[in-house]
Amino acid sequence: MELWFSEKNTETCKFSIKVKEQIYSEQTPFQKIAFFESYDFGRFFTLDGLMMVNEKDEFIYHDMIVHVPMAVNPDIKKVLVIGGGDGGTVRELSRYKSIETIHLVDIDERVVRLCQKYLPQTACGFDDPRVKTYFEDGVAFVKKNTSYYDLILVDSTDPIGPGEGLFTKDFYNDCYNALNENGILINQHESPYFENYAKEMKKAHVKLKSIFDVCKVYQFHMPTYASGHWLFGFASKGLDPIKDHRKDKWESLGLKTKYYNSGIHLGAFLLPTYVEEKLNSPD
Amino acid sequence: MELWFSEKNTETCKFSIKVKEQIYSEQTPFQKIAFFESYDFGRFFTLDGLMMVNEKDEFIYHDMIVHVPMAVNPDIKKVLVIGGGDGGTVRELSRYKSIETIHLVDIDERVVRLCQKYLPQTACGFDDPRVKTYFEDGVAFVKKNTSYYDLILVDSTDPIGPGEGLFTKDFYNDCYNALNENGILINQHESPYFENYAKEMKKAHVKLKSIFDVCKVYQFHMPTYASGHWLFGFASKGLDPIKDHRKDKWESLGLKTKYYNSGIHLGAFLLPTYVEEKLNSPD
Repeated sequence: MELWFSEKNTETCKFSIKVKEQIYSEQTPFQKIAFFESYDFGRFFTLDGLMMVNEKDEFIYHDMIVHVPMAVNPDIKKVLVIGGGDGGTVRELSRYKSIETIHLVDIDERVVRLCQKYLPQTACGFDDPRVKTYFEDGVAFVKKNTSYYDLILVDSTDPIGPGEGLFTKDFYNDCYNALNENGILINQHESPYFENYAKEMKKAHVKLKSIFDVCKVYQFHMPTYASGHWLFGFASKGLDPIKDHRKDKWESLGLKTKYYNSGIHLGAFLLPTYVEEKLNSPD
Repeated sequence: MELWFSEKNTETCKFSIKVKEQIYSEQTPFQKIAFFESYDFGRFFTLDGLMMVNEKDEFIYHDMIVHVPMAVNPDIKKVLVIGGGDGGTVRELSRYKSIETIHLVDIDERVVRLCQKYLPQTACGFDDPRVKTYFEDGVAFVKKNTSYYDLILVDSTDPIGPGEGLFTKDFYNDCYNALNENGILINQHESPYFENYAKEMKKAHVKLKSIFDVCKVYQFHMPTYASGHWLFGFASKGLDPIKDHRKDKWESLGLKTKYYNSGIHLGAFLLPTYVEEKLNSPD
């Protein structure tokens, strides 16, 4: 028997992975979760048929969502993660001794519980006592605290299904208010290459730009996401990811990382012309 | 009818594109050439079943193979392209008025002729009177001239089939001798992500490093190549791609590019940690 998992990048283009077996699947009130064992990517899981995390390249995404803001403000103490139920983002955050509090809000407790069972490589992040999990709507949660967080990481799915509310201007506004004066927001920003993704990248960027003082975009090579060219948005109330990059301070922490380094920190913000043009075009 | 073109990244992982039709195919003495019309990528062509060039993202590859060395030495006058029968590399080179001579050596004349017929977007490069084409073995051709070229671009297929001889130490040695004292070699360097490609990246790098004084690697986002993370090797007799980057001079030329810019020039050389480690590991 041959079993192939396929993910459509567009209606007429897809990426397929041969899998050894489907380990588990469950329909929750929010989405369909499934775990697979593959040949090339180790174990991976999907939400509504889209690959979220696999053992081979999750380090790239989690390095880039966490270490970029931490190297701009190594004094970050209070962090909010919205989404990220697989635990990989929390795992990277928990490597910083200086962080005091990590709140993780995921609408679907089953993602966390199942990742703890089937994907311990990422879900080990939940073992840290500084991590407090909330299983509720991130859109509502972020309204609760004002001027509280140093860092908010929006570790969301694509802007369809349960992740949709995380791409609205109201939500970004609430994030702005929940951040203190040195606050940084990192937003899962989709991809510039295929038009269906690029449209969402552009929309998220325009919304963030209308709210935050500093608003930049950075890229990384994520082979299992559509086109392999993926982006995060960096928004803040003043800190600039390049001018305020505290390279020496971050390097003095001695954290071993497989993707991120101080060179990548700079290079990630240097975007191809067509991406810059799309981000800055009037439409 | 549904017609899908699939390319295997590994035996257990593939990328598939729905095509409208196969336009043409031909078995030459060297390889099988085929042209297709697709929905997402416009027209594309394959050699022995592997996608070489498509209308949607060929600009990325051709920007990065040409403009990086040209921004390090804008006084380049004599260029040799080995492979590159699609004409995209020559098209970008011909935008520099200062270049006097472009020799293109492709073992298979049919690639050039068929691209002229079916892929004029790239093959228009051959219309420039400074371009002289040689349909012979690049490995033999490069032995003919000593200290002659300012730039050699190895625009090859993967190191199997007709492209195999272009990945040997003898060939790189002959390139070294064919370059003058300011000479630069750019080498198609494969990809760091999947082991089968990473092995070739490493081998090419080690060989070039044993011959050239300066040997760096730079990356770009190439969505239709395996993993989307692709590399070129930059080797020279002394010119450094960053220290000798002539940003102002290049920008003064006023060339409009869709991927390359002076920021990308720098950022492309800033590699992820796992790529640096693989390149510099002893094995």
